[in-house]
Amino acid sequence: MTAGSSFGQLFRISTFGESHGGAVGVVIDGCPPGLPITVAEIQKELDRRRPGQSSITTPRNEQDQIHLFSGVMDGITTGTPIMLMAYNRDQKSDDYNNLKAVFRPGHADYTFQQKYGARDWRGGGRSSARETIGRVAAGAIAKKYLKEKLGIECLCYVEQVGAIGSSIDADTVTAEQVESNIVRCPDTAQAAEMICLIETVRDEGDSVGGVLKGLIRHVPVGLGEPVFDKLHADLGKAMLSINAVKGFEIGSGFAGVALRGSAHNDAFYHDETGRVRTRTNHAGGVLGGLSSGETIHFRVAFKPTSTIRKAQETVTQDNEATILEATGRHDPCVLPRAVPIVEAMAALVILDHYLRNKAQNG
Amino acid sequence: MTAGSSFGQLFRISTFGESHGGAVGVVIDGCPPGLPITVAEIQKELDRRRPGQSSITTPRNEQDQIHLFSGVMDGITTGTPIMLMAYNRDQKSDDYNNLKAVFRPGHADYTFQQKYGARDWRGGGRSSARETIGRVAAGAIAKKYLKEKLGIECLCYVEQVGAIGSSIDADTVTAEQVESNIVRCPDTAQAAEMICLIETVRDEGDSVGGVLKGLIRHVPVGLGEPVFDKLHADLGKAMLSINAVKGFEIGSGFAGVALRGSAHNDAFYHDETGRVRTRTNHAGGVLGGLSSGETIHFRVAFKPTSTIRKAQETVTQDNEATILEATGRHDPCVLPRAVPIVEAMAALVILDHYLRNKAQNG
Amino acid sequence: MTAGSSFGQLFRISTFGESHGGAVGVVIDGCPPGLPITVAEIQKELDRRRPGQSSITTPRNEQDQIHLFSGVMDGITTGTPIMLMAYNRDQKSDDYNNLKAVFRPGHADYTFQQKYGARDWRGGGRSSARETIGRVAAGAIAKKYLKEKLGIECLCYVEQVGAIGSSIDADTVTAEQVESNIVRCPDTAQAAEMICLIETVRDEGDSVGGVLKGLIRHVPVGLGEPVFDKLHADLGKAMLSINAVKGFEIGSGFAGVALRGSAHNDAFYHDETGRVRTRTNHAGGVLGGLSSGETIHFRVAFKPTSTIRKAQETVTQDNEATILEATGRHDPCVLPRAVPIVEAMAALVILDHYLRNKAQNG
Amino acid sequence: MTAGSSFGQLFRISTFGESHGGAVGVVIDGCPPGLPITVAEIQKELDRRRPGQSSITTPRNEQDQIHLFSGVMDGITTGTPIMLMAYNRDQKSDDYNNLKAVFRPGHADYTFQQKYGARDWRGGGRSSARETIGRVAAGAIAKKYLKEKLGIECLCYVEQVGAIGSSIDADTVTAEQVESNIVRCPDTAQAAEMICLIETVRDEGDSVGGVLKGLIRHVPVGLGEPVFDKLHADLGKAMLSINAVKGFEIGSGFAGVALRGSAHNDAFYHDETGRVRTRTNHAGGVLGGLSSGETIHFRVAFKPTSTIRKAQETVTQDNEATILEATGRHDPCVLPRAVPIVEAMAALVILDHYLRNKAQNG
Repeated sequence: MTAGSSFGQLFRISTFGESHGGAVGVVIDGCPPGLPITVAEIQKELDRRRPGQSSITTPRNEQDQIHLFSGVMDGITTGTPIMLMAYNRDQKSDDYNNLKAVFRPGHADYTFQQKYGARDWRGGGRSSARETIGRVAAGAIAKKYLKEKLGIECLCYVEQVGAIGSSIDADTVTAEQVESNIVRCPDTAQAAEMICLIETVRDEGDSVGGVLKGLIRHVPVGLGEPVFDKLHADLGKAMLSINAVKGFEIGSGFAGVALRGSAHNDAFYHDETGRVRTRTNHAGGVLGGLSSGETIHFRVAFKPTSTIRKAQETVTQDNEATILEATGRHDPCVLPRAVPIVEAMAALVILDHYLRNKAQNG
Repeated sequence: MTAGSSFGQLFRISTFGESHGGAVGVVIDGCPPGLPITVAEIQKELDRRRPGQSSITTPRNEQDQIHLFSGVMDGITTGTPIMLMAYNRDQKSDDYNNLKAVFRPGHADYTFQQKYGARDWRGGGRSSARETIGRVAAGAIAKKYLKEKLGIECLCYVEQVGAIGSSIDADTVTAEQVESNIVRCPDTAQAAEMICLIETVRDEGDSVGGVLKGLIRHVPVGLGEPVFDKLHADLGKAMLSINAVKGFEIGSGFAGVALRGSAHNDAFYHDETGRVRTRTNHAGGVLGGLSSGETIHFRVAFKPTSTIRKAQETVTQDNEATILEATGRHDPCVLPRAVPIVEAMAALVILDHYLRNKAQNG
Repeated sequence: MTAGSSFGQLFRISTFGESHGGAVGVVIDGCPPGLPITVAEIQKELDRRRPGQSSITTPRNEQDQIHLFSGVMDGITTGTPIMLMAYNRDQKSDDYNNLKAVFRPGHADYTFQQKYGARDWRGGGRSSARETIGRVAAGAIAKKYLKEKLGIECLCYVEQVGAIGSSIDADTVTAEQVESNIVRCPDTAQAAEMICLIETVRDEGDSVGGVLKGLIRHVPVGLGEPVFDKLHADLGKAMLSINAVKGFEIGSGFAGVALRGSAHNDAFYHDETGRVRTRTNHAGGVLGGLSSGETIHFRVAFKPTSTIRKAQETVTQDNEATILEATGRHDPCVLPRAVPIVEAMAALVILDHYLRNKAQNG
Repeated sequence: MTAGSSFGQLFRISTFGESHGGAVGVVIDGCPPGLPITVAEIQKELDRRRPGQSSITTPRNEQDQIHLFSGVMDGITTGTPIMLMAYNRDQKSDDYNNLKAVFRPGHADYTFQQKYGARDWRGGGRSSARETIGRVAAGAIAKKYLKEKLGIECLCYVEQVGAIGSSIDADTVTAEQVESNIVRCPDTAQAAEMICLIETVRDEGDSVGGVLKGLIRHVPVGLGEPVFDKLHADLGKAMLSINAVKGFEIGSGFAGVALRGSAHNDAFYHDETGRVRTRTNHAGGVLGGLSSGETIHFRVAFKPTSTIRKAQETVTQDNEATILEATGRHDPCVLPRAVPIVEAMAALVILDHYLRNKAQNG
């Protein structure tokens, strides 16, 4: 089971496809039967990640129309593998001809070439973010199961772009607020500044990074495994596996290291309903690797997009020094489109651990 | 293969044991045959993590003597499972009697109880950091294989304690420098301040967190898998699975989000030997999830130790509010003892991916 | 990793698709890069299993045209997941309308319904033998790798149909001889009798079973794992996972139990080239779960096809007794079409274990 | 997850240990919490497989005393890994000194040496049947869970020794009847003949094989996965992974191939309670890879013990021809001691699939 293109144990996805091959897609194995799901519901999530959706994303206009090939009958999951796939349509691979022999800085060209002795150089091949179409499609199903069957909500928003932060009440923020602007930051004032920054770096032929905040609400107590498969360890891996992610923190994270234990520990108490709660949530909803019942909250750091138009020093496959001046159409900032990807990965982790816990302790 | 107590695919470890049961240990499956290894070499690593090693760790004096039960003959690995185990000796479980019915803030007591319907309350049971004895023992073998067969070095040091940082040249720092003081921070001046801070919080009955820096040198190009099992995603999971870890970042991490792409991208060039190198290493030694040949560097955030002597608000298993004033002997700061654990987990990830890469591309 | 639709560890396949959904196919993860492969080569193997290929198979004329969507560039494997798929064309699901509410004896209708609370009743859904299209497609790639890179040959033929046996020299039989007649039994005289029997049972609206013999030649010494993943245990699982298989034996199998150890043990000697060989091969090419270098030979028992036209007692989904008289077009004997499936599964097991052994011991 | 010493997905065991190293044992991960279990209950199963238990087993007198190190508190499983181990006591490795350089026919000496470049030659090392101590210990827990929580019974008996068969009513045979004689064949008359045969081959310095029959009663409908992890495919792998096993068949098996489909298909009907049953059980309790609710019945072929005292032709590690005349103390027939091993493996498969089914469909 070392297949590097699979994720999850019981709700298990396997993605396939290159940027400019025939298609990109996903096989989901282990989905519980009996869940109503439509292609339109899945497409809705994909539309949130598709290129060309707004003025601050890449102008490549890819529809990423998803097709369903198995595992659903009469609109209901049957329990057998679900295959979902988007054909590759907008294949201007000529755009990439000049990249055939050049290693782009910040990209996987060099490491792929060294690992496999060859690489699909068209649009990054397997390392293209198109791979995440499969994740988002599978995540749409996981999100629906969590929401409808268990009342669990996975939500993500843009907290920071470049050095521009924001102020958002994580307890009350809604999906509608996230979708209310094109940068997907619910702090409207700061969102405007973020958009302005993204437009500036775009016009400069440059790019910028940022931070996404993830929330998972109403998780039952006890999901996760105590040792290696701690819930936040699996969440961290999930997020770090997304292109351009360089950091992950749960709860207080890096900032928490400066606190004293007496300030950091979340005191237990009984709320008015008698349920055990904590007064604070520095833990981020996870104690000893298991969900505590408090909202899981985490942050994900995205580096600035590697593809820029500015000239860069690099080398060719034939061992010559060169200057790369990329053309093509790219995202100046990946964060707005990464929001549904983070939500999808979060949903995949939680549903998988829900099923694992059900098997042993249900 | 959802066993939450196993880690790795081809060099695979499975740990077992509770803090106050019969023993804690590990089974390693998939170790290449022909590696010379002695119990003394393994013990040396364990001595770096054992309690009571210095004035700033818990005064519990546990020898954690490791025993070898299988998989090695005449001092050479045979390719069959290696079982290593330390008997639990210093079992003052009476110390914990008062914890039988109380949920300690910041600990796994409450979540274990809810998940399994019961828990081993003696010293945290399975959630005790004693579990890492198995990791360090297995890591000692992985470290030796990497060093002797492949020339790869895994190194870790304390970079920050509380708010006290340090200034260390990651390119030149040595294992000897790390071991030169009890806090394992190679910046001698700052190390003295860190020790002072730890002694202060200890005397106050409180605790403090910090940041560890990890380095992996001389990794060949191409280790890691392109999609879910990116090298830094597996490193991140490995680190996040260690008790008290709340954050992980590779290369530029959270700080890198504020850079422009033109500043963040690491330019490729050929060094004097003709090898492809990068002028900077914001990537942290990983491009597209695959090792780039540059030094892998990452940071790990540890929260302040949850166990403190100060009084804390909490609840009992019987649904009553109470005030917990812990006694017992605990670490005011886990970082000095966590250094060998981070090194061990790094070595396990790298060796596993080395074998995976060898299988497909070797 | 409990995905029941995946097989193999390092050369890992995941199949998807129902008989009458959109498509059936397979994702292969872990294929070594650099292998030349064409769709035509894969199609050739599929043509050996397709319906309508001869007078003794089902007259359903399905072309099972395979399409390649990823993982191959310029005719060479790239090391990334390979997706292969055949659209479902000949979907006369009206043929199956009368089966919607009836549990067919010998089929999975009843157990699927009970397990999942629903089932795709059109042509058996996921339990249809169409699922093996993915296996044969993936096996075609594995077979090519084994043959071209390692000189290993996977060969299978029909040894028995009903009570009609055959006499074949397993040491010299060739693929051409197997393909020389439509029943795929290299004993020409007995093949004629087998064909006659199959035609008879077909005309009676009945069916018949048989035995396939598998051979794997030129396997290097040492493939397989010593304990649970013994080479013949994984071969056995592979074969038992094929529809209609009820038995598997390696080497002397069930007949060997009556021998004395002194007769059964295969004596070692050095052949003229100095290589260690055995005088006999009762072991079937496997000692202690590891390949011995002798030809691996095994037998696979297939029950008579469950679908027959003769009237049968059964029950409906609505809990009523009924008599089922099936119509539709079915195989009176599955063995001729099962030959390429057994070869495919054998190739998948051997290539997977070759890669596993290379990782640890290569 | 290619660890060859692990078995199962959710109730997962990992065995370790060589015949003459420090110990043999097992780690069980994923056991549901709350099961009462005592060392005595586990020991009882081990006593059924231990050497020296009767006049027809090896006279080596090994107590195989099991020790429990983790995962059980106050006699109840806690949900964390359970480690069980037997120290190696009766280590007369001098007995094996003459085997250091000789490859025993029928054994794994040669293949281990070639695979790993070395081997533990003392008593077969890892390939020794002592490895099954871990399986039987883990199986004891699985059997208890199945029996007490689910009412499922795993039963096995000796059906044939050499050419001596028996006549047993599989519907009514009890565990007590199996244990009523030392050969574990409930047909008392035939048991006497079997014992006589075993004594004869023992006195001749030879050995003999046989067939075990396995029964699993009261399995709920729907356990197993439809494609690769069919219930009987996993049972087959489990059995084929036991030392000396050369064949496995479910239900009608090899004999069923000669039947017509109309005779082989098991007709469905409603019994007096309204439950769906089949009139016959040629399927062996599995339809489409899923349990049907009928008793699962299967047969397992064991070759004659490879270790015999009679002189045998072989070669040495130094490439010389030689004659081996083994001394030492060995089983003339492994079947009586294999009965608890087959029961253990059956229980492990069923419990694992029960948990898998519960996760997805429970």
